[in-house]
Amino acid sequence: MKELPYGLSVDLDLPLGRAIAATKEALKAEGFGVLTEIDVRKTLKEKIGADFQPYVILGACNPSLAFVALQDDIDTGLLLPCNVTVREEADGRSVVTVLDPNVMSRVSPSAELKEVVRLARQKLERVLDELSRQPVN
Amino acid sequence: MKELPYGLSVDLDLPLGRAIAATKEALKAEGFGVLTEIDVRKTLKEKIGADFQPYVILGACNPSLAFVALQDDIDTGLLLPCNVTVREEADGRSVVTVLDPNVMSRVSPSAELKEVVRLARQKLERVLDELSRQPVN
Repeated sequence: MKELPYGLSVDLDLPLGRAIAATKEALKAEGFGVLTEIDVRKTLKEKIGADFQPYVILGACNPSLAFVALQDDIDTGLLLPCNVTVREEADGRSVVTVLDPNVMSRVSPSAELKEVVRLARQKLERVLDELSRQPVN
Repeated sequence: MKELPYGLSVDLDLPLGRAIAATKEALKAEGFGVLTEIDVRKTLKEKIGADFQPYVILGACNPSLAFVALQDDIDTGLLLPCNVTVREEADGRSVVTVLDPNVMSRVSPSAELKEVVRLARQKLERVLDELSRQPVN
């Protein structure tokens, strides 16, 4: 698992479709359902005719954690659901990246948020650890 | 328009449904389509049986700006689409809040992002200005 400036990431030796399926499975095991799914490449092609690499944004939500976060700071909906991006690189491998929940406590003035952010990050680290144990092609 | 720690907000003298419709209209005028819509109250009720106020998260996307942002920093998908929350308060009025695009340049190390973030914020400010001119009930 790699720490990025505002995300956590793993590289998978899987093409996009299988990487998305594995990501959803690993999220589910930690209580995150996928509420939204945006095919970025398709959207950019349709809307502005632009070519882009295979790239999907999943909106993952753990309802119990989201409920606590919204009670701690009503504006946390601006950063929910928790985005997970899956993109395929030119070599056929995929990169899965999760928004670091710490971003929420960095921008929100609510001190109460810290605990739920800590729990969310723990769960998402387990998601990425599980993904990094995926069997390869 | 109010500036929040990580959002921009206006209060509307409209119930939720009309506030959502007005918000979508104002977003459209600035080139933002709504790609996703999450009924937070319904989701929390269905998933964990929790009661919550009327609260919707719209995922707004201006494809031209998103394309530039993704090229400047491939991980900006973690903060796309731009979330807009609409919630109804106990008095029947609604609050519309938009994620401040500056959050993107605060967390990303990409210097190139600053220009597209500036453009996105200008457009979203115009969206909220337009909303604040809505006729009341």
